[in-house]
Parts: sequence; structure tokens; C-alpha cells
Amino acid sequence: MIPSIDFQAGLPAFSALVYGAWRMADGADTSAQTALKKIQLCLDLGLTTFDHADIYGDYRCEALFGEALKLQPGLKHQMQIVSKCGIKLISSKYPSRQVKHYDTSAAHIRMSVDQSLKNLGVDRLDALLIHRPDPFMNAQETGACLDALIQEGKIAAAGVSNFATHEFDVLQAAMRNPLVTNQLEISLLAQHTFLDGALGQCQQRGIRPMAWSPLAGGRLFGDEAAALRLRPALSRIAQAHGVDMDAVALAWLLAHPAGIVPVVGTNNLARMARLGDAFKVKLDLETWYELWTLAAGKEVP
Amino acid sequence: MIPSIDFQAGLPAFSALVYGAWRMADGADTSAQTALKKIQLCLDLGLTTFDHADIYGDYRCEALFGEALKLQPGLKHQMQIVSKCGIKLISSKYPSRQVKHYDTSAAHIRMSVDQSLKNLGVDRLDALLIHRPDPFMNAQETGACLDALIQEGKIAAAGVSNFATHEFDVLQAAMRNPLVTNQLEISLLAQHTFLDGALGQCQQRGIRPMAWSPLAGGRLFGDEAAALRLRPALSRIAQAHGVDMDAVALAWLLAHPAGIVPVVGTNNLARMARLGDAFKVKLDLETWYELWTLAAGKEVP
Amino acid sequence: MIPSIDFQAGLPAFSALVYGAWRMADGADTSAQTALKKIQLCLDLGLTTFDHADIYGDYRCEALFGEALKLQPGLKHQMQIVSKCGIKLISSKYPSRQVKHYDTSAAHIRMSVDQSLKNLGVDRLDALLIHRPDPFMNAQETGACLDALIQEGKIAAAGVSNFATHEFDVLQAAMRNPLVTNQLEISLLAQHTFLDGALGQCQQRGIRPMAWSPLAGGRLFGDEAAALRLRPALSRIAQAHGVDMDAVALAWLLAHPAGIVPVVGTNNLARMARLGDAFKVKLDLETWYELWTLAAGKEVP
Repeated sequence: MIPSIDFQAGLPAFSALVYGAWRMADGADTSAQTALKKIQLCLDLGLTTFDHADIYGDYRCEALFGEALKLQPGLKHQMQIVSKCGIKLISSKYPSRQVKHYDTSAAHIRMSVDQSLKNLGVDRLDALLIHRPDPFMNAQETGACLDALIQEGKIAAAGVSNFATHEFDVLQAAMRNPLVTNQLEISLLAQHTFLDGALGQCQQRGIRPMAWSPLAGGRLFGDEAAALRLRPALSRIAQAHGVDMDAVALAWLLAHPAGIVPVVGTNNLARMARLGDAFKVKLDLETWYELWTLAAGKEVP
Repeated sequence: MIPSIDFQAGLPAFSALVYGAWRMADGADTSAQTALKKIQLCLDLGLTTFDHADIYGDYRCEALFGEALKLQPGLKHQMQIVSKCGIKLISSKYPSRQVKHYDTSAAHIRMSVDQSLKNLGVDRLDALLIHRPDPFMNAQETGACLDALIQEGKIAAAGVSNFATHEFDVLQAAMRNPLVTNQLEISLLAQHTFLDGALGQCQQRGIRPMAWSPLAGGRLFGDEAAALRLRPALSRIAQAHGVDMDAVALAWLLAHPAGIVPVVGTNNLARMARLGDAFKVKLDLETWYELWTLAAGKEVP
Repeated sequence: MIPSIDFQAGLPAFSALVYGAWRMADGADTSAQTALKKIQLCLDLGLTTFDHADIYGDYRCEALFGEALKLQPGLKHQMQIVSKCGIKLISSKYPSRQVKHYDTSAAHIRMSVDQSLKNLGVDRLDALLIHRPDPFMNAQETGACLDALIQEGKIAAAGVSNFATHEFDVLQAAMRNPLVTNQLEISLLAQHTFLDGALGQCQQRGIRPMAWSPLAGGRLFGDEAAALRLRPALSRIAQAHGVDMDAVALAWLLAHPAGIVPVVGTNNLARMARLGDAFKVKLDLETWYELWTLAAGKEVP
């Protein structure tokens, strides 16, 4: 079973891995029945936290998830739901839109949250994240809006995604409630997040980062030089633990003292069933640095 | 009319555009009478705040401005004057100087302020800015000097120019009075200022940034790729509002929630007369991002 | 005589230059008697502070230094000793180790400090520095361990080395005691430290940076372009003061308002004897910037 963790004081426990719903509406079979099957499998695995965004699946994922929940409404009490807003995609749903852009105005955030709640068929999001730092952000307006949504009970907590440390600080300074996470690109092939202060900021503020593309979007298994350097070691460790290489790459994140929560998204039921394997792998410090060093292509200074 | 704004508590209102005097002593006609004509035109337009530095015009601009004011001394009560110090230019005025350098010592700042007051013929600067971050800065000494100058009434407020966020924080931590602005390069062709934390810092501290080269020093109308991408859109928006492209580029800055105050410097009286047009242009969010995207050459992530 | 300085409240005075022991076990003659000769010369010069690390000389320098002190135990009361930990080298001393890595766990820090005390034959380190920022650092654990070591009297103070400003802040936030220094690469050929906020952070926190490789590891006297640009000026200034170029390069650091403490390491007794010459050189501001400009290859903006 995938363990649950104390994500943040005042919030329900999250699962130590989060299921990313961003591809749930991909593929040929986008029926509510199939979505329900994936949700049920997640819950059976202990993977109780689901990561959404208004825009996933060209604005269709939340609604599909909500339709699946309608088939078995009791499930919604067994899960935690994170969603995001702030990006406006060019989409057939918004035919007049010409330019992909960000919108962190209070009006847009409120509209988006209401739409997410309606699509998902729930009364409250366990966390709402601002999806991208917005160079046009009015920190006072955005911060006050997030506080108000918490106050009103529409969201249990607010967080951010892809925010540099200074962007996090500016928004946090405009809020009463703590931002509870920063969802970042973190993986063996995204080492910059370990060096640019983002994980240190989470440690200092006592919050957990979430990791998107924890397997580097599949690039770990591709042809780039870092991946080719890493694979023999990943394979060796995987064999020693009787797991696959995915599990080792996730374990590498789970080992970190910042308390990283990987967001994994796969439509492959067999792979999903093995996600818990990541918790069987215990990496000692030297092995952690062996992978770091292979990824970097050079030893530490 | 160019509107006035509440620049900072305790300071007189500034104009929402500031006239940059750095080229006032350029060209063939550098008579006090001609300078007075420009000053008068600015005031007639509502452009009441003037941006100087000791070094502008090879150390001649402040004195020319002061000579113009002597022709009509009442004008000085209708304006706000910002000046700067901290750069030591190689100049025929300082024949023994061999190396352009910075000097943020108390002695130099005091000497420079006294000289600026004398040149301008005023009793007080509305704001004094440290012109450049100085790698040799003694923050305690510089900060204490700025506080003392405020205390003595020689300057109403202190600020900085071209300071990175960490440089701003170090100086601010050594002062009792708030730094009231950071004058930065901000334009459609200087997007880095929107991303490096500088504008966020201003929002967090409740101060307004000033923008130098808000039209990118004319490069917006040159041949570089970003300018070529931008011009059709600037032209389309300008025509829709019945203004010129300058006004659109300034409106793009004025629209930003950080409260950017552009510093415009032109000796062309016809162009000056049209500066107020920037306030006629209302850019919606998508159009703001259209220009952002054209400037960047790619859509937002 | 090399002057002593008030390094940090509560610590003994340090010398304004620190002797770096990192090459003490190099060369043919690594006898305790020869090491003692160098130590004695340092003390005679007023160079009373010695900079060590567990790993210097492939883990042999501290022990050699300790053997030398055993020959004349009274000397240990005339000196201050800084050491470092946190790097695990591949070494014949640790044959099972395969990957150079960092370890800032409490267990490793404690083990390393105990080993350093034993090797050096002293009861307390005047300062212990974390040698490198560790991407796997648990700030709470590391900070609490450093506080405990101070509490127990095993170290008089803690500091860091090579920490970016954000890394310093994260560790400091997890501690009760102030970090008393950041030992950084600072020299005419390492100007980045003057620009990246590290020296400003020291000024803001009221601590002194230490400079490793203050002569750029000899590169100042090599063939790279910046060195070739600098040498005529270094030579001119050296001649004017009757010193060698090393002294000018050190004086350039000593002049800086951040209170830089250079760490000099040489096994050449004649060069050691001349280290005090750096204090004979007084650089005026323009000359400081002349060297800055030659190093940068362009005048300041």
C-alpha cells in the first residue's frame, strides 16, 4: 500500500504519491466507466490524492473525473483533490481566444474554482494551486482572493506551481494563510530544482514540494546522454530490489529530506499497480549521490 | 493631461510619466531659454516630475535645468525633481580621473547632492537615487548617509536604480527610511525585469518602480527580430486608439499592476505633446500578453 | 606583523589573514618537524588562525598539524583553528567508497568533528564550517547538530563554505546560533562573488567572509587574458609600494568594506614571510576599480 502522509496541518492526509489526472481524457476510451476503473484502482493502492487542473485534457479532465464520481458518489469521501488555475489555453472551448496567456485576477480564479467544483461534483478543493507564475500578477489581488476562497470553504488550502522562490515569497507576503506547496519539475533529469533554492524554501517554510514529471516525462528511458548514463545504475538497483526502474527513480525523490511528493500520471493499469514498489526501495546516501552524479555527468565539486 | 499619482506616502504627488532630462543638454541649442520651453511644455502637459542625474549631459544637464528655472523661478514649486549619484565618469570636468567607477561613500554622496542642489537651484531633491549597484558599497555607510540627508531635509526620499533584489534588500536593511523606488530598465524589449523578481519586490514593499528606456531607446522601431515581430501589433493597436506606437508601448507598461512609472526623454516637442496619449490606450489582458508573446518570440510556458 | 581582527562577538580574535593548511602535507618533506617550522613562522608573523578541513591532504593534514603541535604543545593556545566537514572523498582511507559525495547528516558531522579534534589534538574547534552546500541537506538536522556541538563546547562557532545566499538563509533559519562566516572563492579572477549577493549578505548579517584562492590559485600569474590585463597594473602598484604583486592582490581584497579575510596557503617560507606586506598597500577607490575593470575586461556599466 502507498502510505499516507501528513501533508499540512489542518488538511486531510494526502497519499505519498499523487495521481496526476492530466492524461485521463487521452486515448480512445474516455468513458466515465473507464475513468472510474482507474480511480478505483488508485484508491485500492492507497493512492488517494488526485492532481487536476482546469486545463488538463483541453479542459475536459475534471468533468470526466466528475462523471466517473457520479457513478459511485461515495468515493469522493475517500480522496483528496488538488486542482489548478491561472492558464488560459487556446482551445475550441474558447474560440475567441487568440493568445495563450495567464490570468491570476480574482475574477478569473473565482470563475475557475467554481467551474472546477462543478465539473468535479465536489463542494471543496483540498488545495488550489496557481499553475504558473504570472508576470502580470497583482500579488495583493491574487493573495486576497486565495485567502477569501479558503475563508468561504471553497478551497481548503492554496499553493503554487512552478514558482521561483522570489515569486513564492511575494505571493505569500500578500496572504494570511500559508501556501501549502510548490509543485515543481523535479526528477533525475531536472536537477536544477535541487540547486535553485526551491527545495530549501520548502524546508524553511515547513511545506512539502510536489514533483511533476518525476520520471522526466519518459525521457529517463530515452536516448539523451544523461538517461544513457543513468540506466545501468537504475537497472542494477531495480534488480537488487526486485522492482522496475520507475520505482527506483521515484524512490530517489522520496528519499530526499524535503519530503517530495511525486505526481505520477499513467493510464497503464499494470504500471499503476506497481507504483507502490517505490516504497520498497531504500537508497543509501552514496547511492543517492551515485544517481545524482550520473545525471549531472560529473562528480560533485 | 498626464495624471498625477500618489508616488509614496509623505512625498508630493508625482506625474504618472516622468520627464527624463538626460539628453536635455544634447543638440545644437542648449540655451536656458530653449530648456525653459521644454520645461514649460512638460508642466502644461501635466508632466511635473523630472528625472536627473549628476552625470547627465557630461555633468551639464542639472546646471542647464537650473539656469532655465532661474528665468522663471516660480516653476520650481510646480515640479518634483529626482536626481542620482554614485557614478564617476571620465570627463573633461575631472581631468585627473582615469577609470570610470562608482562611489557610494558618504563623502561623495554628500558632495554630489550639494552640487545637484546648487546646479538645480533648489533646496531639496524630492528623491535621490543611487545610480548603480556598487560592488564596493559599504551598506551601513551608504544607508546611514541617505537617512541623514533625509533627516537634514536635503532630500525628501531615497531610492536606487538598477539594483538587483538582493542589492536592494542589503541597502534597505541598513536604513531607517524606506527606499521609495528602483529605477530599472523595463520595456517590451527588456522583459527580464518582469521575471527576475524586481517588480515583485516593488509590489511586496508597496513602492513603485520607474522604467528607464521604456521605448527600449528607440530599438522598438529598429530592425531586431523582436521589434519586427511587435510592430504590426503595435501599429494595429495604435490605429485602433488613434495614437502612435510609442503610446501603445508606454500603455503596456502603465497597465502593469506594479504601478510602473515610465521615464520618457525626448527633445522633440511634437512627440512630447503626444505623451499623454499613452493614457488613452486601454489594453486588455490578452492584448498585454499578445505583446509579451511577440516580444519573447514564443508563447508562455 | 599581520594584525588581528575582531572576527565575531564571542570568538577569540582571528588574524586578518588566515593560513590555509590544505597543502601542508604536500611535497617530499611531510615531517612533523617541518610542519612545526611553518606553524612557528606563521605565529611569528601574527598569522594565528589556521584553516583546515577533514579532507585536506587526502585526510592527512589535520593529523600532521596535530603531530607538529605535540612537539610544542604550548602553541595551541596561541592559535585559532577552523576546520570543515561534509565532503566524502574517494580515498584509500575509505576503500569501499565509490562516489565522491556530501554528507551533512548529524551522524557524519559529529563523527568528523570528533576525528578532527583527535587529529589536531585540541579540545575545541574555533569554527566548524560545512564545506559545500549539499543538495541532500536536511536543514533542520544539520542546523540542530551545529547548535548542539556549540552547546557541548566541541566547536566555538559554526559557519559555511561555498554557500549561495539562499542556502545560507535556509541553514541559518534552522539554527539558534549565528553562522559566523561563509568561506567563498573571492579574488580578482572570481568577481562573481561581488555580484551574486554573497558579500552583501555578509554585510547585512554583520559577519566576515573568508576568501579561498585569494590569488586565484596562481592563475593571476598565468596566461589567461584577465591575468595578462591585470599584471602591468599589479606590477606598477607593487613597485610603488615596494611589495610583490601577491601583496597587491591581497590588499585589493582587504580594502573591501565587507571585511574579507583571505585564506593563504603556501609552503614557500620566503613567500610566507612577505604576507604581511599586503597591509602596507593602501588602494584608493579609483585604483580598486582600475583592477576591477582590468579583471572584467570592460568598464563598469
